[in-house]
Amino acid sequence: MTQLESSWKPYTALAGLPSRVRIVEVSPRDGLQNEAVIVAPEKRAELVRLLAEAGARDIEVGAFVREDRVPSMAGSAEVFRQLGDIQGRRLIALTPNQRGLDDALACGVKSIALFTAASETFCKTNIGMSIDESIAVYRGMVPEARANGLWVRAYVSTAFVCPYAGAVTPAQVLEVVRRVVQVGVDEVCIADTVGRATPGMIAAVLGAIAPVLPIERTACHFHDTFGCALANVLVAMQRGVTVFDSAAGGVGGCPFAPGAAGNLATEDLVWMLHGMGIETGYSLDGLVRASTYLSGLLGRPLQSKALNAIVAMTSS
Amino acid sequence: MTQLESSWKPYTALAGLPSRVRIVEVSPRDGLQNEAVIVAPEKRAELVRLLAEAGARDIEVGAFVREDRVPSMAGSAEVFRQLGDIQGRRLIALTPNQRGLDDALACGVKSIALFTAASETFCKTNIGMSIDESIAVYRGMVPEARANGLWVRAYVSTAFVCPYAGAVTPAQVLEVVRRVVQVGVDEVCIADTVGRATPGMIAAVLGAIAPVLPIERTACHFHDTFGCALANVLVAMQRGVTVFDSAAGGVGGCPFAPGAAGNLATEDLVWMLHGMGIETGYSLDGLVRASTYLSGLLGRPLQSKALNAIVAMTSS
Repeated sequence: MTQLESSWKPYTALAGLPSRVRIVEVSPRDGLQNEAVIVAPEKRAELVRLLAEAGARDIEVGAFVREDRVPSMAGSAEVFRQLGDIQGRRLIALTPNQRGLDDALACGVKSIALFTAASETFCKTNIGMSIDESIAVYRGMVPEARANGLWVRAYVSTAFVCPYAGAVTPAQVLEVVRRVVQVGVDEVCIADTVGRATPGMIAAVLGAIAPVLPIERTACHFHDTFGCALANVLVAMQRGVTVFDSAAGGVGGCPFAPGAAGNLATEDLVWMLHGMGIETGYSLDGLVRASTYLSGLLGRPLQSKALNAIVAMTSS
Repeated sequence: MTQLESSWKPYTALAGLPSRVRIVEVSPRDGLQNEAVIVAPEKRAELVRLLAEAGARDIEVGAFVREDRVPSMAGSAEVFRQLGDIQGRRLIALTPNQRGLDDALACGVKSIALFTAASETFCKTNIGMSIDESIAVYRGMVPEARANGLWVRAYVSTAFVCPYAGAVTPAQVLEVVRRVVQVGVDEVCIADTVGRATPGMIAAVLGAIAPVLPIERTACHFHDTFGCALANVLVAMQRGVTVFDSAAGGVGGCPFAPGAAGNLATEDLVWMLHGMGIETGYSLDGLVRASTYLSGLLGRPLQSKALNAIVAMTSS
């Protein structure tokens, strides 16, 4: 690995990009939630530990949702309890409603993620609430979260394309982001849920929401379903975004394209960023260990190109 | 497909990018040359026909090289003979030496590609000639090719990282490109042979060679071994490049990382370009047909993310 990375040395930087990126590692939640295999809480906790050892600072650990509807996230409280505090790490729980917040608070969670969407149909299908209803619920939850000292991020999913309704316009995203910001969150994460966005769309949406959301509170969550995630990251960085979600090994798949690629792979993201001299805090060696463990849990090879290349080169 | 593409409509373009890109489809040569399975000439000809039907205009069809050393390219003359002329298509043969040119001329080839490298070690290992020797050979070949009305491109491989020597500097690439341009070729293709380049390196090398190579005669050939190929295409387009190589399905692999991803997949490239309103002349439906045929020839699934997503969505 050291040898691989040393080949970048002579010239790396691209003008106008940040010197450091904060990665939010989502494999234990967004990744595993969309896998067919159910992974036991103690194994999810071990995955989180391996990710933390690899340098992950922000990790989406689990979701407080109905276990009958989302069995893959059952036992999220147990995962948090097993982990306790990990020094210097932000362990995030998805809490899409008041009951989720109650459960998260009960087990000492300190960082939460809310969920809404830019597409009405997707919002209703995914969390059983309209966009209006979700905003109203979060307006009630956030003051309580704040009073408990929680850090709060909100996802605006289907910010580019909706699997049901098709095109989503930047104006639609702006409207939802404006209302989410008014609720009072720390960070808004703009998500390409179905991985169909291309760089021009990223620029258009980021331009549209800039007046209501400071760039330092903007995160991007790109799925790699059609292979464009890293190009989308690049254009988002060129517009000032410094926070990106990714999942070790690219786990997660796409429920709307069974068999297709899932989240942007953390290894691919880290390879590109380190290759440009952008710090992430991650070690590729550590990531390979975490993804190798994850691959074992799922019983299948993972789709990260950098992971597979590194494994091939270091084992040959 | 039409429905998928329609979700892009409302906002697509990214400022400063070209309105049209010329893709050089390399699956029949660079792709198949690096696959373990040997494909018979009549099947390679059928692949080329399917690619042409999908809208490919520039296709690297075969290589005139020693059949004992490169058995996968044996019968390239037969492939060209079976194809004859395809209206409006440029069918390219790799001819890395005088004997290759003789053979190509003998079967009526009208477009050739030469091969050299920015890394001395790679050049010697790959074509058995030093960089100096390769330039000297091409200085002899190009006037004959010109006299026969041939179109000539030259690859400068390992333009970013050499699998043997590690880092390659922009100054090394500049020196080789300068000499290749003096030989008198129509197009110089800057290749990331091992797929380890990241966007900062692309910008540095394109900046270095700009004084000696007009941007309209610059092509880029990015392997997707570490997943960065599309991000590299994006930054190259931002610097004015409008010609990119890719292979249907992403075939080809990497001889230096067995099992890793190969060429940039044409489907992924076309998805990103069409998603930004950039014309390519390709139809994604046609590409899926060509890649499905190719997948059958190789007896394995292909790694293009867009291909796999489209197949999953249209078959579910």
